[in-house]
Amino acid sequence: MKAYQELSKEELLALQTSLNQEYKEAQAKGLKLDMSRGKPAPSQLEMGMDIMDILNSESSMKTEAGLDVRNYGVLEGIPEARQLMAEIMGTKAENVIVCGNSSLNIMYDTFARSMTHGVMGSTPWAKLDKIKFLCPAPGYDRHFAITQHFGFEMITVPMSCDGPDMDMVEKLVAEDATIKGIWCVPKYSNPQGYTYSNETVKRMAALKPAAEDFRIFWDNAYAVHDLYEDRQDTLLEILSECEKAGNPNMVYEFCSTSKVSFAGAGIAAIASSVENLDFMKKSMTVQTIGYDKINQLRHVRYYKDINGVKEHMKKHAAMLRPKFEASLNLLDQELTGLGIGEWTKPNGGYFISFQTMEGCAKAVVAKCKEAGMVLTGAGATYPYGKDPKDSNIRIAPSFPTPEEMAQATALFILCVKLVSVEKLLENK
Amino acid sequence: MKAYQELSKEELLALQTSLNQEYKEAQAKGLKLDMSRGKPAPSQLEMGMDIMDILNSESSMKTEAGLDVRNYGVLEGIPEARQLMAEIMGTKAENVIVCGNSSLNIMYDTFARSMTHGVMGSTPWAKLDKIKFLCPAPGYDRHFAITQHFGFEMITVPMSCDGPDMDMVEKLVAEDATIKGIWCVPKYSNPQGYTYSNETVKRMAALKPAAEDFRIFWDNAYAVHDLYEDRQDTLLEILSECEKAGNPNMVYEFCSTSKVSFAGAGIAAIASSVENLDFMKKSMTVQTIGYDKINQLRHVRYYKDINGVKEHMKKHAAMLRPKFEASLNLLDQELTGLGIGEWTKPNGGYFISFQTMEGCAKAVVAKCKEAGMVLTGAGATYPYGKDPKDSNIRIAPSFPTPEEMAQATALFILCVKLVSVEKLLENK
Repeated sequence: MKAYQELSKEELLALQTSLNQEYKEAQAKGLKLDMSRGKPAPSQLEMGMDIMDILNSESSMKTEAGLDVRNYGVLEGIPEARQLMAEIMGTKAENVIVCGNSSLNIMYDTFARSMTHGVMGSTPWAKLDKIKFLCPAPGYDRHFAITQHFGFEMITVPMSCDGPDMDMVEKLVAEDATIKGIWCVPKYSNPQGYTYSNETVKRMAALKPAAEDFRIFWDNAYAVHDLYEDRQDTLLEILSECEKAGNPNMVYEFCSTSKVSFAGAGIAAIASSVENLDFMKKSMTVQTIGYDKINQLRHVRYYKDINGVKEHMKKHAAMLRPKFEASLNLLDQELTGLGIGEWTKPNGGYFISFQTMEGCAKAVVAKCKEAGMVLTGAGATYPYGKDPKDSNIRIAPSFPTPEEMAQATALFILCVKLVSVEKLLENK
Repeated sequence: MKAYQELSKEELLALQTSLNQEYKEAQAKGLKLDMSRGKPAPSQLEMGMDIMDILNSESSMKTEAGLDVRNYGVLEGIPEARQLMAEIMGTKAENVIVCGNSSLNIMYDTFARSMTHGVMGSTPWAKLDKIKFLCPAPGYDRHFAITQHFGFEMITVPMSCDGPDMDMVEKLVAEDATIKGIWCVPKYSNPQGYTYSNETVKRMAALKPAAEDFRIFWDNAYAVHDLYEDRQDTLLEILSECEKAGNPNMVYEFCSTSKVSFAGAGIAAIASSVENLDFMKKSMTVQTIGYDKINQLRHVRYYKDINGVKEHMKKHAAMLRPKFEASLNLLDQELTGLGIGEWTKPNGGYFISFQTMEGCAKAVVAKCKEAGMVLTGAGATYPYGKDPKDSNIRIAPSFPTPEEMAQATALFILCVKLVSVEKLLENK
């Protein structure tokens, strides 16, 4: 195929006419498609239902150490659950606290605590005139929502396939003590599906921040979320890297089973240095007597250990792969060589990231919507919802069926073509 | 029996000798008793185990409206759970948000949010130089821990069997805009087991606080926790009272099923005006995508409605009554007329409150400890852990068996007698 940029005005106009015709036909179908959020599909949820049989009225409700999970107490989570979540993150149980059903909630609480009580003795962030946060982008909109909610000035850091621009990160954190942290989705990043290179992780762990209360927020949301058995990314373990680099307290790591067991009823955990955890627990012990330990036990009895989790994730992968492939194959077939879009081909995670020509993303999302398909809002992957180039679109293949995904991608491609033609015609 | 105050020095000395002998014998038994916390007993937890069979791999995981409880979303909780918790609190589902397993956590989060984001547009509490909170006492130590954690100056308000001293409350809140709220356990209060009178509730609802961001924190922890079928306290419904009094936004009510289903794995809720809830949700939607809806559905399917809860609570009452009675009977038999202690006889809740002679509580708790019995620390029922009269002790009968409770109360009585004699001898 010829690149659209090489087409004459007349060719573009002719193309526009035929694309408009196609679009009208698509609209007439009255589609209802949703690719907006990284939600597991009903089939994935159904596949994991046997976890519901693990505990019943005949089950022992005691941990190996004899703790009754039904009663109050055990703030940091039952030992077995700490061990399981540690294995998922590749760290030690003593470095883990298991909480409720949402790692986002732990992240939010970590901010809220730092706002009112500082970080291991530092001035509470709420008392500071200016607080800033580094936001590699495209990134996760709910991360940016937290930093915005607490009044941070967000600084966008460009992403590459190796992770955030570390030259920029190193320079900024060394110079500016008002920068209190950085958001990271280090493995199968949201939305690009990139995994930080070993060099990126090592440079991250060796940062020399001007702020003593600077923390890396390491959201390892897709730690075990490989799509292929023969093509898997690996990520260096951040806690030990920070330790080696002389920064043992610089990182908070988060993970959950939201996309392992159930999106709404998994278990979530934070991993960090014992010193950080001890400081956190001073607030946590005021906040709650303990999180839901029955659900912790349910997960432990079901998955047993990291191998159980990995086996289970193979079943998820088998369900997700056809959806990713339905989308990627069509993108390859229809857009290769046209010069109007680029997209990522992740080995895991929940998203495909698509780059339109500059200034086209919002229009593509709007066009899709008018034909009955909801995408994540254009710009959502950037701080303040503002993509400076208006070109990033997050595609979430998990919820639709493979057939719906092919249908959705076909519509998406049509809209990309149409908006791109319109854009190119503006300058003819 | 003659009151100890009427005994001569010689009589007291003789009594002391025999009590000391008894105490040594008690110590020699090597008891291990715990009356420190309001924890359900293993038998109570066991009795409710059939809730574990309610959901299994064959169950429909959808709400009546077709929401899949396994997936993300539904921030305010599933409609059925909002309805159930509303019935427990005597209010409407639209006024309720159902959260995770801990009402304490909701209270803490409500403070944390007010600290950083104020209350419906007010200045964030963290930005204020001085913040104060009214603390009816004796009260719940974990409430006071929250207000202390966030830097409030706590003002003790005396409790009577009708509730807090409302003359004092009305005067203080009208005059002092730095007073941001009041803690209340309005039914079967912790630790006294008092229920606020209708007049107290109406006066509370009609407060005219100087602070626009003043809120009543109404911890209705024992809403359905009657001990007797024929002797039950009733509490006026606070939301509608506040509405009638022209203060629709003045109250947050909290409740949970921690002492209905499982202490560590129940569901908890907040009830308030729709305006308050809407303001809360602006933060909550940043904090989490949703709480554990599977556990919400489990509770709804098991209890069905308030009648199911009430039937279930009769079984709890049947288990708790003998423990309360074991203790109360012994106190009656052994201490009536001695002038060295007074105690409450609650119709529900989880505690008995005991008043020693002034200056004796710490010593009694210490004496009990030396003989192998843990009680809640003396002073814990007051702000800053300081009981000005050093006389209140909280007795928690739920965890031991009735036999252990009798044994524990006997030891407690012995220690009260011994410490009282010592106290009286100081002034002879």
